[in-house]
Amino acid sequence: MSKAQPASRQQFPHFLAISTRWLDNDVYNHVNNVNYYSFFDTVVNEYMLREGVLSLDAGPVCLVVETGCQYFSPISFPDIVNCGLRVAHLGTSSVRFEIGVFRNDDETAAAQGHFVHVCCDRETHRPLTMPESMRRALAKLGAA
Amino acid sequence: MSKAQPASRQQFPHFLAISTRWLDNDVYNHVNNVNYYSFFDTVVNEYMLREGVLSLDAGPVCLVVETGCQYFSPISFPDIVNCGLRVAHLGTSSVRFEIGVFRNDDETAAAQGHFVHVCCDRETHRPLTMPESMRRALAKLGAA
Amino acid sequence: MSKAQPASRQQFPHFLAISTRWLDNDVYNHVNNVNYYSFFDTVVNEYMLREGVLSLDAGPVCLVVETGCQYFSPISFPDIVNCGLRVAHLGTSSVRFEIGVFRNDDETAAAQGHFVHVCCDRETHRPLTMPESMRRALAKLGAA
Amino acid sequence: MSKAQPASRQQFPHFLAISTRWLDNDVYNHVNNVNYYSFFDTVVNEYMLREGVLSLDAGPVCLVVETGCQYFSPISFPDIVNCGLRVAHLGTSSVRFEIGVFRNDDETAAAQGHFVHVCCDRETHRPLTMPESMRRALAKLGAA
Repeated sequence: MSKAQPASRQQFPHFLAISTRWLDNDVYNHVNNVNYYSFFDTVVNEYMLREGVLSLDAGPVCLVVETGCQYFSPISFPDIVNCGLRVAHLGTSSVRFEIGVFRNDDETAAAQGHFVHVCCDRETHRPLTMPESMRRALAKLGAA
Repeated sequence: MSKAQPASRQQFPHFLAISTRWLDNDVYNHVNNVNYYSFFDTVVNEYMLREGVLSLDAGPVCLVVETGCQYFSPISFPDIVNCGLRVAHLGTSSVRFEIGVFRNDDETAAAQGHFVHVCCDRETHRPLTMPESMRRALAKLGAA
Repeated sequence: MSKAQPASRQQFPHFLAISTRWLDNDVYNHVNNVNYYSFFDTVVNEYMLREGVLSLDAGPVCLVVETGCQYFSPISFPDIVNCGLRVAHLGTSSVRFEIGVFRNDDETAAAQGHFVHVCCDRETHRPLTMPESMRRALAKLGAA
Repeated sequence: MSKAQPASRQQFPHFLAISTRWLDNDVYNHVNNVNYYSFFDTVVNEYMLREGVLSLDAGPVCLVVETGCQYFSPISFPDIVNCGLRVAHLGTSSVRFEIGVFRNDDETAAAQGHFVHVCCDRETHRPLTMPESMRRALAKLGAA
C-alpha cells in the first residue's frame, strides 16, 4: 500500500475533457470509484480511434489485461474531468498507459491509474506484434 | 406505438453538452438505449443544481415517477450529445421535462424523451407544493 | 400524467432475477431511475438469447425504438429485482414488451415499463418481417 | 507487468453471486473491464451491510484509496459472476480486500483484483482507528 504522489498536468502529453453525469455520484455524493475506469477506457479508446489505429471489425484486437487506480481527492457531478494520457511502456505487443484525472482546473491529479493493453489475434487471442501504425501513434504519447 | 416527429433545436430553451464514453456503446457499437436516460437525468439535475434549487441535504426531494424515450437514429462514441431541455407542464407539485438528444451539430433530434419529477416531503414521500424558488427556475424553461 | 396501477406477478408469464449492485444506488440511496432500463434490457435480451432467436453476427437486428417506465416505490441495493416479462403486442416487424419490476418477494410491482423492438435489416436498418422462429418465441410471452 | 496466477475458489472464505446485464457487454461482446469494479464494490459493500458495519448516515466512512484488477479470460452476459472475497491485510484504519471473479461454475478465476478501504472521519476525511465491530467482521475474512 505504498502511497504515490499525485501527478501534475505537465506529465501528460494528451488530454481529453469528459463531463460527469448525475449517475456517477454514489450515495456519498462523490463520483464512485468504479466510474474512474470508464474515464480511462474513454481517453484511451478516443485516442486510438482519433489516430485511426483501432479497428472494430478486422485486424488485431486490444485486450485489457490489467488496470489500477489510486484515489487522492473526491470529484462530484457536475465537475468536468480532464484526463491526461501518457504511454509509460511500449513493448512488442503490449502498452502500458498511465492516466491522470484532473478535476476542473486543478493542476494536481485527483486520481491516477494505469491501463495495460495487449495486441492480440482476433480469433485466437494470442499476442501479436503490434502493427507499425499503432506503435507510431502510441510512441507519440511517450512521457514528456 | 404512435410515431412522434423528431424535435428541432429551437424547441428547447436550455442546452447541455455531454461527452459520450466508450462504455456507452453496446455490442452493436451504438450508444445503448439505457444510457439516454443518464443524459436526461444529467441535464435535469445540472439545471436544478445550477439554479440552486436542488438540495441534497434538506427540504423537499424530487422523486422521479415516470420517464420515457423515443429513439430515431443512432449515436456512437465519441459523438457529443447536446441535450435540449424544456418544461412541458408545471403543476402544483410536479413538473414534466422534455428532452431532445442532438448528435454533434445535428439540428434534428436523434432521440427525445420525458422525465416527470414530483416534489415530495423528504421523510414521508408525500407530494408537497413546490417551493416558489423551484417554480421560478422551472418556469424559465417553458417551451419556447 | 395518468397514473397506472402497479401490476401483479400473475400478469407475467416469464421471470428473471437480477441482483442489484452498490453502484445502482444514487445519492438518495435508492436504485437510480436509469438503472431500471438496464433491467428491462437484460430480461428481454436474456429471453431472446435463451430462445436462440437473437443473433449478434448475422440476420436481422432488433432496434429499440421506444422505452418507458413508471416508478411506484423505491428499490435499494442489496435488494433482488425480479423482472416479469410479457408481450403486449406482436406486429409484423415489431414487438411491445411490458416489464414488471418486483422487489424481493413483493407481489406488487415497484415499477413497470415497456420496451419496443423493431426487427430490421442489419445494413439498411429498414423494418423486416420478423423471422418465424422469433415470432414463435415471442408469442409464448403473450399476456397470461 | 508481472503476470499473476489466477486464484482458485478455495482461496476465498466468502462468495456472492452477481448476475451480469446486457449492458455489461461492450462492442467485443465481453463484459467490459470497467464493470469488474462494480462487482468488487458490490461484494465488499454487501458483506459490510450484511454484517451491520456499514453506516450510511453516521459514524466513520470507508473511503476507497486504491483498486486494481488483472483479467485472465472473458466473461459475457448472461454468465453468472461468482465473486470470492478475502481480507489480505487488516491495518489500524485500512483494509485490503482481494476479490476473485469466477465465471459460472469455473474453479479458476477469470479475473482478480484488490480494493483498499480506509476508515475516515465523516467530516474531515482523516483516517480513524477502525471501530472494533468492523475489525471483527473483517477479521472473519482472513485468507483461508
